[in-house]
Amino acid sequence: MAARYDEIKLGRLKEEVCEANLELVEKKLVIYTWGNVSGILREEGLVVIKPSGVSYDNLVPNMMVVLDLSGNVIEGNYNPSSDTPTHLELYKGFPEIGGIVHTHSTYATAWAQAKRPIECFGTTHSDYFYHEIPCTPELTPEEIGGDYETNTGKVILRTMEGRDYKAMPGILVANHGPFTWGKDPFTAVHNSVVLEELARMAYLTLTINQDITGIQGALMDKHYLRKHGQNAYYGQPADKEQKK
Amino acid sequence: MAARYDEIKLGRLKEEVCEANLELVEKKLVIYTWGNVSGILREEGLVVIKPSGVSYDNLVPNMMVVLDLSGNVIEGNYNPSSDTPTHLELYKGFPEIGGIVHTHSTYATAWAQAKRPIECFGTTHSDYFYHEIPCTPELTPEEIGGDYETNTGKVILRTMEGRDYKAMPGILVANHGPFTWGKDPFTAVHNSVVLEELARMAYLTLTINQDITGIQGALMDKHYLRKHGQNAYYGQPADKEQKK
Amino acid sequence: MAARYDEIKLGRLKEEVCEANLELVEKKLVIYTWGNVSGILREEGLVVIKPSGVSYDNLVPNMMVVLDLSGNVIEGNYNPSSDTPTHLELYKGFPEIGGIVHTHSTYATAWAQAKRPIECFGTTHSDYFYHEIPCTPELTPEEIGGDYETNTGKVILRTMEGRDYKAMPGILVANHGPFTWGKDPFTAVHNSVVLEELARMAYLTLTINQDITGIQGALMDKHYLRKHGQNAYYGQPADKEQKK
Amino acid sequence: MAARYDEIKLGRLKEEVCEANLELVEKKLVIYTWGNVSGILREEGLVVIKPSGVSYDNLVPNMMVVLDLSGNVIEGNYNPSSDTPTHLELYKGFPEIGGIVHTHSTYATAWAQAKRPIECFGTTHSDYFYHEIPCTPELTPEEIGGDYETNTGKVILRTMEGRDYKAMPGILVANHGPFTWGKDPFTAVHNSVVLEELARMAYLTLTINQDITGIQGALMDKHYLRKHGQNAYYGQPADKEQKK
Repeated sequence: MAARYDEIKLGRLKEEVCEANLELVEKKLVIYTWGNVSGILREEGLVVIKPSGVSYDNLVPNMMVVLDLSGNVIEGNYNPSSDTPTHLELYKGFPEIGGIVHTHSTYATAWAQAKRPIECFGTTHSDYFYHEIPCTPELTPEEIGGDYETNTGKVILRTMEGRDYKAMPGILVANHGPFTWGKDPFTAVHNSVVLEELARMAYLTLTINQDITGIQGALMDKHYLRKHGQNAYYGQPADKEQKK
Repeated sequence: MAARYDEIKLGRLKEEVCEANLELVEKKLVIYTWGNVSGILREEGLVVIKPSGVSYDNLVPNMMVVLDLSGNVIEGNYNPSSDTPTHLELYKGFPEIGGIVHTHSTYATAWAQAKRPIECFGTTHSDYFYHEIPCTPELTPEEIGGDYETNTGKVILRTMEGRDYKAMPGILVANHGPFTWGKDPFTAVHNSVVLEELARMAYLTLTINQDITGIQGALMDKHYLRKHGQNAYYGQPADKEQKK
Repeated sequence: MAARYDEIKLGRLKEEVCEANLELVEKKLVIYTWGNVSGILREEGLVVIKPSGVSYDNLVPNMMVVLDLSGNVIEGNYNPSSDTPTHLELYKGFPEIGGIVHTHSTYATAWAQAKRPIECFGTTHSDYFYHEIPCTPELTPEEIGGDYETNTGKVILRTMEGRDYKAMPGILVANHGPFTWGKDPFTAVHNSVVLEELARMAYLTLTINQDITGIQGALMDKHYLRKHGQNAYYGQPADKEQKK
Repeated sequence: MAARYDEIKLGRLKEEVCEANLELVEKKLVIYTWGNVSGILREEGLVVIKPSGVSYDNLVPNMMVVLDLSGNVIEGNYNPSSDTPTHLELYKGFPEIGGIVHTHSTYATAWAQAKRPIECFGTTHSDYFYHEIPCTPELTPEEIGGDYETNTGKVILRTMEGRDYKAMPGILVANHGPFTWGKDPFTAVHNSVVLEELARMAYLTLTINQDITGIQGALMDKHYLRKHGQNAYYGQPADKEQKK
């Protein structure tokens, strides 16, 4: 077994995933057990995720569950999050992400419940999410009755078809809530915080002016690209490598 | 008297009820004296409840009032909560609950004032409350003029007829506010926190999309049952016994 | 001068007024200098009020300004609150109040800006405020151009005509914000906190259900009277004298 | 170089700008790196501004960037905020301001995204901002594709034409967010806090009463002038010089 993976690297990821889970509480995105964060060691094909239904108050790194991409538990004394199969689908479908977050954060969940994508109303949005944040269609009764959590992953991947998952690091699952991802668990949490704030701003924008439409393409491009494009000039030079 | 009940067991319940009352403040469900929690020793038929109109700042366990199910004060130097008769009705009508909470939490009270049940718009709701959260009809002037607090309990029981009180651990009393219950006082508080958040999410959902309807039955069943059903797989094996 | 009033009693009131002002910040009813609390010694005819435009961070009791009911400064090194003449009118018009609060708290101010009274939508409201919370008419340009702050007091008194100021311990001044009062400065602050929460609940109630109307008279009477009536049974026996 | 400016004065401004940036976080106007504050030494023609994309957690005074009014970096190891050219335009256009703030605060940004000016609905507004807070028109694709941040400054100046920038210390940039200014960086932050609260109150006012119109001119004048006019009587005598 020792040959199969690097214990130090895995231990570090468990700490990171644990801490990223705790950050969900600190950023007020979850109450009780309403969320989960995972991370992945790509070379080893190992996913680290929060145990199911365990209170954040008691969470420590060695409670994290380690699985392979087929869902076999490799390490850990707890059941993994019941949403684990959704995470696995996304890791398989988005080959360059390193972390995933699921929450029931208030405003993002309200949009998911209203089954509406979040249109791009401003530069705050296009600084992070390029174009509108999609909302999946509902699952069919067959998909729900079958392998529900895997099918949740599949409907996310289907909805993301034709979209660049690096430029759209999150989605709303209809009647459920948001999923976000990123290059590592902390970036995925960061994107969850931003998504929640964008959902809140969009809610207010729409109730101030029901007829408002999204921002013009030129402005959306400008903001996304000044931060993430090849000639990005937002931030410090050292950030650039990190960004791509 | 010593023969009638176990002082240690009762002392423990007083501590639990006191602490559960304080948790209402910590979770921002009540300001001033706007709420109360009770618990029951089923075998002994003793109910422990917060004293009426006493500030949470000064609450200690031996200020709790102990009553029998007929409302006779057995122990305590204070008047019990003015809502005590409502609690007693619920303990009599729901034989397996162990704790009850009443608050005037903002969003749940707003729905109660709007006299609308909270429809099940998403999985956050169906993880805890199976189907829409009902709102009682208004009391008649006769019911208000008579034994008001007992009649409040009765209208709750009438509205819950045909519903499973374990799968619907809360209700809105029209023009008043929410009541929740659970297997013990802390679970009842937990359900109050969840109800308030569901009320907030439903409010936002409805103002984003006025025409939205509740989630499909298959999804509602799936989420409720993966957490509470016989084959529940959410959480850890040890939780199961606790859950039912 | 020593003959005119009791220094100890006055010193105690200054402390109380100072602390009540600080409580506005703690309860999140004011930011910066957006509020003021006063108190009165009825026998001596002395009003104690916050100095104008002074930050709450630096407020200490001996910065409070002491005036007589004609507005003459008796003690203090600072200008009194610019709203002082409004307070004086209310002390003259409501002979049994002992404290007054003015804030620009968010929801109450929004109702004042919308120029709508806050209808009584539930028992939370009728536990404290008997009937709808009125909103004054606008001042005329002449009243604004004249002795503006005194005229603000006068329009409050005019609007309160035919209402019992003890059963309606607050009002909205159109386009401006709320004033509340009570038997002492802390009770007036308490009523400001309650008014803000009622304004928030009423806002939510109305946006959930635009056609909602106020609660039936029987329920309103029941709640107001079980707490404040002759046969009040809310709270502890010792509270009763305090209440009336 | 030593002859060109006073190191002590500059050092003090760096501290002030750094602290004013941190105040944005404390006042909950920004998350992550979503805002920036600058200050200016008028005689020296030196602008001090936050570095771009740097976390507030790590901000210390000597990380501030010093530029001249043409945008040449004079001192500092970091890239200046990407919004620097907007700040420079405003310093050139508003000759008596000493500090500028840009944020993406929630309610003000929602109004900017809804592309609506914030009407003056009450005295809280007219205590600080005289008349409605304008919203710029959208930039043209050419302006966005060209020197975008400079053009943002130019559209602000164009929109402010005919308005007194001292009596209107802030603006909404369409689809983007608010900019505020003041006699120094802290006053500019103060104005940002006030603008956000006014945006929130106006949002609530409008959703309570869609047909509401702004306050009468006499009341607006009264409140603005009792605080800022020649015969201002709000606050303490010592404030007066500071105010103008």
